[in-house]
Amino acid sequence: MLTSIGGDWAVRFADARSAALPVTDLAVTRGDAVFETIAFFDGRPQALDQHLDRLAGSARKLDMAEPGRNLWTATILSAVEEHPPWPELSVKVVLARHHEGDDGMVRSWVHVEAAADHSTRRNAGISLATMSRGVTRTAAREAPWLLMGAKTLSYALNMAATREARRRGADEALFLTVEGFVMEGPTSSVMMKRGDKLLTPAPGIGILEGTTQQNAFAYAPSIGFEPVYADIHRGELLTMDAVWMLGSGSLALPVHHIDGAEVSADPGLTRLLNDHLRFGHHA
Amino acid sequence: MLTSIGGDWAVRFADARSAALPVTDLAVTRGDAVFETIAFFDGRPQALDQHLDRLAGSARKLDMAEPGRNLWTATILSAVEEHPPWPELSVKVVLARHHEGDDGMVRSWVHVEAAADHSTRRNAGISLATMSRGVTRTAAREAPWLLMGAKTLSYALNMAATREARRRGADEALFLTVEGFVMEGPTSSVMMKRGDKLLTPAPGIGILEGTTQQNAFAYAPSIGFEPVYADIHRGELLTMDAVWMLGSGSLALPVHHIDGAEVSADPGLTRLLNDHLRFGHHA
Repeated sequence: MLTSIGGDWAVRFADARSAALPVTDLAVTRGDAVFETIAFFDGRPQALDQHLDRLAGSARKLDMAEPGRNLWTATILSAVEEHPPWPELSVKVVLARHHEGDDGMVRSWVHVEAAADHSTRRNAGISLATMSRGVTRTAAREAPWLLMGAKTLSYALNMAATREARRRGADEALFLTVEGFVMEGPTSSVMMKRGDKLLTPAPGIGILEGTTQQNAFAYAPSIGFEPVYADIHRGELLTMDAVWMLGSGSLALPVHHIDGAEVSADPGLTRLLNDHLRFGHHA
Repeated sequence: MLTSIGGDWAVRFADARSAALPVTDLAVTRGDAVFETIAFFDGRPQALDQHLDRLAGSARKLDMAEPGRNLWTATILSAVEEHPPWPELSVKVVLARHHEGDDGMVRSWVHVEAAADHSTRRNAGISLATMSRGVTRTAAREAPWLLMGAKTLSYALNMAATREARRRGADEALFLTVEGFVMEGPTSSVMMKRGDKLLTPAPGIGILEGTTQQNAFAYAPSIGFEPVYADIHRGELLTMDAVWMLGSGSLALPVHHIDGAEVSADPGLTRLLNDHLRFGHHA
């Protein structure tokens, strides 16, 4: 299922197999485009407005115009309706420049597909390999053109880090600043539990603002946890009471090893978080 | 003109307008692909083998299989032959993973088009705006998963830096390490003249090895210049006898201003370099 929105934001429906981009498209040749992946559980979007807010922020970082919120929301919901019902759907929304130099021309597409099955990882957990993201903790503030914190199609580095993690025998990478501060995974946020606190790095460090992490933080006080944005050094990771990687589709994946060393787990809290993230209301 | 090479490296010719990638292709969704742009002047490729060597190096950095050199060369030459003759052609060669998870499946396409006209910039020169690339000068050596020095489709950052340069009233960006060492432009190498030396940063600093810069270096001794790879700090730029940005299609573009300050020029040497780069033999 694909919806294409032209220069005047007209909506067109097409089958994903027939919907295609010319090899000269800037989204292809330059990865000069932004995106969001929105999960639908039992037909209901997870944090739709938060995703569209973040997409708008990414678009601003790339100086791109975007369609109106109502049109985008309606298009996404229509695209999902066109897809056969499925317990977990994944909706990718892309906003892209069309041709080089043609700065005013922007288009968007919405692609709906059955989500990958994360149930095994949600139960059994994953292992992480930490590695440098090559940037200082102030790079994002000092150099906005680096697009740290924008969700662009330029993910070759993220994919290479994931391959490096697998090469080291781990499931996922966890990026650190050059000073050793914890950032994020290539496609997920990190959250930790210490005592009665839930911790995550502040977005100013040059990471994506995680919609799933924000939902977990909004939920935290109701179950007796204080949500805290903090600088967390790599050395502190193994002292945490629990660590999770959070994503829109995967939700909260418990971490059982970091760089080969075991970390504590909290299966009860993991279940509570995932039930909330999956079934809770995140308007 | 597009040539597609499938899993068994079969060659297929198609019109560029009809050749297209599904929106689910990894080249689109992740920019997880590598490329080269090869200039053909009067039907002759500029540094074809050097480009294919660098493409092979990029492919290794991304753990991708590549077609044999002979097949690739033959396909590129055939694709150019299918295109109507033109004084300056630009040939983009892309090597991409097909689908996520499908690590063995790789494909390539070759797209031929009339090159942009760089004659005005070659004569009148360009202005630069320096800006941080956010990385230290040792990042590329310490963290190969950052893909510094690989020519991937993930160019959103490069495009954002170019927009930032234009915002500052300059034509192009010039990246610096966080320590202030000169790196490269978003789509070109930098070369400088000081006395009887031609200078450029060493690739180990995390930049692409410039094929056009390498050709200029190979030519340098024959016109009385010593080619030198060196660490060059931003502060040294204005003291140079001349500065050029080098690209496969643009060749040597003389720089007349850096961050608003005038830099010296050497029109005679610029002409000599461009005549060599355009007409010389670079086998």
